[in-house]
Amino acid sequence: MIPRYSRPEMVSIWEPANKFKIWYEIEAHACDGQAKLGVIPEEAAKAVWDNGNKPYTDERIARIDEIERETKHDVIAFLTELSEHIGDYSRFVHQGMTSSDVLDTCLNVQLTQAADLLLSDMDKLLTALEKRAEEHKYTVTIGRSHGIHAEPVTFGLKLAKHFAEFKRGRDRLAAARAEIATCAISGAVGTFANIDPSVETHVAEKLGLAVEPVSTQVIPRDRHAMFFAVLGVIASSIENLSVEIRHLQRTELREAEEFFSKGQKGSSAMPHKRNPVLTENLTGLARLVRSAVVPAMENVALWHERDISHSSVERMIGPDATVTLDFALARLTSVVENLVVYGENMQKNLDQLGGLHNSQRVLLQLTQHGVSREDAYRLVQKNAMESWQTGKSFQDLLKQDEEVSAKLSDETIDSLFDMEYHTKHVDTIFKRVFEK
Amino acid sequence: MIPRYSRPEMVSIWEPANKFKIWYEIEAHACDGQAKLGVIPEEAAKAVWDNGNKPYTDERIARIDEIERETKHDVIAFLTELSEHIGDYSRFVHQGMTSSDVLDTCLNVQLTQAADLLLSDMDKLLTALEKRAEEHKYTVTIGRSHGIHAEPVTFGLKLAKHFAEFKRGRDRLAAARAEIATCAISGAVGTFANIDPSVETHVAEKLGLAVEPVSTQVIPRDRHAMFFAVLGVIASSIENLSVEIRHLQRTELREAEEFFSKGQKGSSAMPHKRNPVLTENLTGLARLVRSAVVPAMENVALWHERDISHSSVERMIGPDATVTLDFALARLTSVVENLVVYGENMQKNLDQLGGLHNSQRVLLQLTQHGVSREDAYRLVQKNAMESWQTGKSFQDLLKQDEEVSAKLSDETIDSLFDMEYHTKHVDTIFKRVFEK
Amino acid sequence: MIPRYSRPEMVSIWEPANKFKIWYEIEAHACDGQAKLGVIPEEAAKAVWDNGNKPYTDERIARIDEIERETKHDVIAFLTELSEHIGDYSRFVHQGMTSSDVLDTCLNVQLTQAADLLLSDMDKLLTALEKRAEEHKYTVTIGRSHGIHAEPVTFGLKLAKHFAEFKRGRDRLAAARAEIATCAISGAVGTFANIDPSVETHVAEKLGLAVEPVSTQVIPRDRHAMFFAVLGVIASSIENLSVEIRHLQRTELREAEEFFSKGQKGSSAMPHKRNPVLTENLTGLARLVRSAVVPAMENVALWHERDISHSSVERMIGPDATVTLDFALARLTSVVENLVVYGENMQKNLDQLGGLHNSQRVLLQLTQHGVSREDAYRLVQKNAMESWQTGKSFQDLLKQDEEVSAKLSDETIDSLFDMEYHTKHVDTIFKRVFEK
Amino acid sequence: MIPRYSRPEMVSIWEPANKFKIWYEIEAHACDGQAKLGVIPEEAAKAVWDNGNKPYTDERIARIDEIERETKHDVIAFLTELSEHIGDYSRFVHQGMTSSDVLDTCLNVQLTQAADLLLSDMDKLLTALEKRAEEHKYTVTIGRSHGIHAEPVTFGLKLAKHFAEFKRGRDRLAAARAEIATCAISGAVGTFANIDPSVETHVAEKLGLAVEPVSTQVIPRDRHAMFFAVLGVIASSIENLSVEIRHLQRTELREAEEFFSKGQKGSSAMPHKRNPVLTENLTGLARLVRSAVVPAMENVALWHERDISHSSVERMIGPDATVTLDFALARLTSVVENLVVYGENMQKNLDQLGGLHNSQRVLLQLTQHGVSREDAYRLVQKNAMESWQTGKSFQDLLKQDEEVSAKLSDETIDSLFDMEYHTKHVDTIFKRVFEK
Repeated sequence: MIPRYSRPEMVSIWEPANKFKIWYEIEAHACDGQAKLGVIPEEAAKAVWDNGNKPYTDERIARIDEIERETKHDVIAFLTELSEHIGDYSRFVHQGMTSSDVLDTCLNVQLTQAADLLLSDMDKLLTALEKRAEEHKYTVTIGRSHGIHAEPVTFGLKLAKHFAEFKRGRDRLAAARAEIATCAISGAVGTFANIDPSVETHVAEKLGLAVEPVSTQVIPRDRHAMFFAVLGVIASSIENLSVEIRHLQRTELREAEEFFSKGQKGSSAMPHKRNPVLTENLTGLARLVRSAVVPAMENVALWHERDISHSSVERMIGPDATVTLDFALARLTSVVENLVVYGENMQKNLDQLGGLHNSQRVLLQLTQHGVSREDAYRLVQKNAMESWQTGKSFQDLLKQDEEVSAKLSDETIDSLFDMEYHTKHVDTIFKRVFEK
Repeated sequence: MIPRYSRPEMVSIWEPANKFKIWYEIEAHACDGQAKLGVIPEEAAKAVWDNGNKPYTDERIARIDEIERETKHDVIAFLTELSEHIGDYSRFVHQGMTSSDVLDTCLNVQLTQAADLLLSDMDKLLTALEKRAEEHKYTVTIGRSHGIHAEPVTFGLKLAKHFAEFKRGRDRLAAARAEIATCAISGAVGTFANIDPSVETHVAEKLGLAVEPVSTQVIPRDRHAMFFAVLGVIASSIENLSVEIRHLQRTELREAEEFFSKGQKGSSAMPHKRNPVLTENLTGLARLVRSAVVPAMENVALWHERDISHSSVERMIGPDATVTLDFALARLTSVVENLVVYGENMQKNLDQLGGLHNSQRVLLQLTQHGVSREDAYRLVQKNAMESWQTGKSFQDLLKQDEEVSAKLSDETIDSLFDMEYHTKHVDTIFKRVFEK
Repeated sequence: MIPRYSRPEMVSIWEPANKFKIWYEIEAHACDGQAKLGVIPEEAAKAVWDNGNKPYTDERIARIDEIERETKHDVIAFLTELSEHIGDYSRFVHQGMTSSDVLDTCLNVQLTQAADLLLSDMDKLLTALEKRAEEHKYTVTIGRSHGIHAEPVTFGLKLAKHFAEFKRGRDRLAAARAEIATCAISGAVGTFANIDPSVETHVAEKLGLAVEPVSTQVIPRDRHAMFFAVLGVIASSIENLSVEIRHLQRTELREAEEFFSKGQKGSSAMPHKRNPVLTENLTGLARLVRSAVVPAMENVALWHERDISHSSVERMIGPDATVTLDFALARLTSVVENLVVYGENMQKNLDQLGGLHNSQRVLLQLTQHGVSREDAYRLVQKNAMESWQTGKSFQDLLKQDEEVSAKLSDETIDSLFDMEYHTKHVDTIFKRVFEK
Repeated sequence: MIPRYSRPEMVSIWEPANKFKIWYEIEAHACDGQAKLGVIPEEAAKAVWDNGNKPYTDERIARIDEIERETKHDVIAFLTELSEHIGDYSRFVHQGMTSSDVLDTCLNVQLTQAADLLLSDMDKLLTALEKRAEEHKYTVTIGRSHGIHAEPVTFGLKLAKHFAEFKRGRDRLAAARAEIATCAISGAVGTFANIDPSVETHVAEKLGLAVEPVSTQVIPRDRHAMFFAVLGVIASSIENLSVEIRHLQRTELREAEEFFSKGQKGSSAMPHKRNPVLTENLTGLARLVRSAVVPAMENVALWHERDISHSSVERMIGPDATVTLDFALARLTSVVENLVVYGENMQKNLDQLGGLHNSQRVLLQLTQHGVSREDAYRLVQKNAMESWQTGKSFQDLLKQDEEVSAKLSDETIDSLFDMEYHTKHVDTIFKRVFEK
């Protein structure tokens, strides 16, 4: 997580002010839960809200840091600072709880907040993709397998594919968000020995979380592993679309281009040198988000009721992966929204092979006119090869070939070079993708 | 995937006979679909079923291999061999389709079959975990954080935790199975130019798959990435339980032991030398399953409508990850079912610290009797330290401490060392875990 | 490791016959070492050689497997079978040794053999790269940054770069081979309690290995982690060159092409459809080799003097990574040797931008004729932009620009479009790369 | 890279002030090189040094940032700010160079500086390990395989093993440092079209770097991949030693403990609760350092002469991996230096099994007194089992066994329980490890 690849809203989720606010809310709600049970006085719980519910300003955070430098314990430092606001009642705060109750529930709240932001990012990306897909629903372009011209598709179809992929990513993220939205207030080893389960239920409800069915000291880390894995798959989809755009922007293709603002300097002396730097950057960012996946999985196997090896990992990948993915999704959305699409170049590139992309269609037609597969192959291959080597029109060559014309009339041949043949089911596909 | 870590049922999913059977079924159903449309004759479709629906014996497979050595194209080899059974009608087979329609749909069928087997594996593991958890619901043992004694838990609780974790893994796998169960019969670049979408719908229905909303030449690889990521998380949970067992089997703990059959040789001269080799092995297997995750994610970004870089990866990780995970789940199930649990050693280890694990409870009680948190700490610490250094009973020391006894009666102190205090909510947790 | 991506020589290193041969040699040399010390009779050591030094035929291997099924211990099974050849003296075999002495030393011998094969593979690749680089030392082609035309390079330079990269890979592999070529015969926990260090020294010498300075029960796994990391970097270099070739073979570039044999079927109806399937395949294989790196690193942290979690990992990644890399290097070598290079297309693509790639050179020249950087930029940019938009010759436009011609004569301008300017240091670079 | 896990010296390598200083030096030395050739005036080069060689204060950095916000190009912003100090001569700066010449050479300088710091960190760790190893050269402790007692080792031996492992890590890092210490000043696509190779040679020499034999626009990324892979292996060795310490600190073992300062709060009420939080933390940090390895390898395959996808990755993993590893090495050194070693507990744990760890030795002795391997096994096993089950002394049981005493005298048996037997070669191993 570095400023260059960060956006403030996601960054703020991981800042001390937000963290302490969540800690505070967990403790305050827990006090309410304890007061309901009569474990602590109602006035104590009230005092926590009345005197403690204040923003975590820089001053308060500095004070907490000061105490932590002495005690070397973050939750104790937090509680001590809080007690300076609440006074004597503070001895009822955190009762029966363990630090991890606060830390783990807080982390899950943060991840949930991060997920919500990412879901909103994805919605914007999906909107942009749908809009551009509709715009280019019938912008014909050559489909390429192995980087080699195959048969025509439309640029809208390409975007529809990425829409569908990000839509799946969104659904997975929503599921991962639900999985990570749990709360544990279960005490030192998760047995509720010192705190009643109803407190956990109360806090969970107030924070919009589910109760963690069985925690030890910690919330189990398979939930987090899944969460980061889902981010990793989304990042891979970002790479997927980025690589597509990078390809389309190559000098020889120039079918699409990242938007290049007027003032933007750079290779001003080489006007063709509009580099797809944003999507290249996104390709790299995808690698970074993905790099969180394995450590998150290595975090699952903690010793017995917990060891703290996961903590340093999460302090880094928590912010890093979410901030980077948030930035990347926003950047990609902007790239998609502003992508310059050169339909004429798409057509030009498509025409480059003189209609050879219809060869399979000719083949099929011959077969359906009674020619054996082997003979059909031979006929198509002969003419295709000549077109390829001489640059002559494949369509014309077919008409001139006696064996072919014995089976197919000129009209039939012409009909085989009709572009609508290739786009006739675009609407079907669009309905599948966008109408759900 | 090596025999040592393989089970036949999962292996057979990846064997040529099953693969060709699926290929055949895709082609045959597609012929039906084409026949319904009148694209090919009904008799052709019928001939495919009548003459082609035969097991792929070693002879047939050898014949396919022979043809592939010439043509260097697996689907053409398959079709050629098939034509030797079907005769002239074979020219209607595969019409309008591309190889990937067969290959990708087949892979998804295989992954779906693999997922079904893994789900059944997980059910067995869950059954075993639940059974042993109920058995040891109240077998008291010390909870450990950081490898250090904390407060008591029960062995059943430990297993309940792993049950809940594998249950989540099962749910994720079921979701991943649903995601991977798609069918694409959309032709060269996914436009249905040469084949009607209704054929795809027909084949999908017959194979129990969903239609892939938008394919290019291939089914998008984010689905596969997600699938392997889910396997990776399950593997990490296997590691988690394995590490727990390995710890419990250490000479100094000996709270549990992998079953050691009578005849089993090994360190016969060192009877204590019962090594947790199965769970150590599972720890390694977890690393292997996890190693498929990153390549699967790297497979997502294919060039344009497809490149074939994903193929070699999937030829390896497809069998490797599923076969290894199947083996690992079965091995772990057996370990759990047969685990020797030494309840008396659990009690002995728990007693080792003379009741110090109740220190927090004493602390809370003092606080509730009006002692300030600081003073309570001091009192507990003083006596705890003496108990720790001298080995004297913590309980006795507290009774002898005047400051303590001024606040807490001997009865109260005794009540703080009652084990039921720690287990009183075990049933609540069990209900949460097992009653859903 | 699957037959499709395997070559017999590397596969045989990992086969039982080779493994047992190495085990035998370790044991036999150890007997010699023990006999020298008088720990076992000379005749015993002699008997091991006289009666045991026979190939491990399928029959012998089957016999060992049979015994292992009973004893569930591979080394004991091996020793028992060996005793059937050696008779009574067999009780002197393996004395004071632990199974790991045999297993770990054997693994290192196998990795060393694998490394030797890989080094030889790399030598062949380097030879091919050098040959083709020399052949195309002055085959001019456009250099591309970000996929966009930049300035001219030569195809030979491209290959020289990959030569240098693989040369570094070779050096690293040679270093990794030296690191892995160690022998440990140090007994149960590495203390030589039951076997004299001189035995280890003897075996190491005979097998061409170094002595492991300090083993526990096992040879430390950081050596293996490093080994697989080096393979991962080489695989990444394979991906690097493969991606280059895949790009060059794109329909719009067609500057180079994988060799396509006459008989090779496939898209015969689409003659342009020569797909770079080999380099795409290599891109996938690179991901597979790389996937061994993290598990190998996770294997380093074994518990105390050893746990066996590394073993299953190595049983898979040992063969998988080396066999796959061997195959990939050989395939890449063949691709390089047979690569069809289209020099005329390179020139055509280079010419596509009408000399704009010399814009920076014009800029420099203007600066050196006293024009400020800002003015020079403006002048170059104006003419470059016109050339880019109208397709007019950049060279001509410059001559017609009064501000430019005030500073640069027509001859000077012409001289700025001389190709030798770009290739004048190719020889220098070749000397750096190939003369070392 | 977060403050909690950072040390200032390593952090400063990655701060703007150091980066710009290196950029400046590259440019200034390049001017000297150009002046020597007469490409630019000597006075220009002199002016760059005279007026530009000033620290990059916060003000200067702010100014550069300001310009970058306009131009969106970091090197242009840097050059513009520099020109404000140098004046008119600034037009000679950066002549014939490309931004990557500066950026890539700078990155390598930074990585070299980082490597030097890490090497120094490792030296300190090695010193600490050697010191503690010598101190505990003969502190006997039980060796454990699979977590189960095996035979005695010494605590010094354990540390010697880790010393040897980190020594190898140090050697690999020194090699990786040499590999990364290269300089490229080769212009837009690495052809030296616009700049003479002698400039590169001059700059390289002045900066203590080697010349990159063949660069494209960028320095090839296999060098960086190797660098981060080496960091990953070192991190794995940190995990290795950390896991050892965590095990030794477990309540039931308590053979060693991280130093716990008097004032340190935490579980003050549970004095036994000294948690190995530092080594647990190091276990997590190892995962983080390792997570840089795969992205660094994915960075190798750049498109053609370069794409910029590597850049965002390096902006993160460059600082993250080196800062984290620096912190981790320093923390581990401190842990080793201050580790509290409980020799008496080691002895106590060793004695726990009543001498059973000598069973193999008894077995060998019986064999050497003419007993067959099978009979020897049976005898040892019988007595070992009785000792294990009853807790009786293994040594006594052997003496009482008639079959045993028929072969071995009481003196012989006693001699088999002599601890020096196990430590007799410790000195040999120490010489191997520490005298090189």
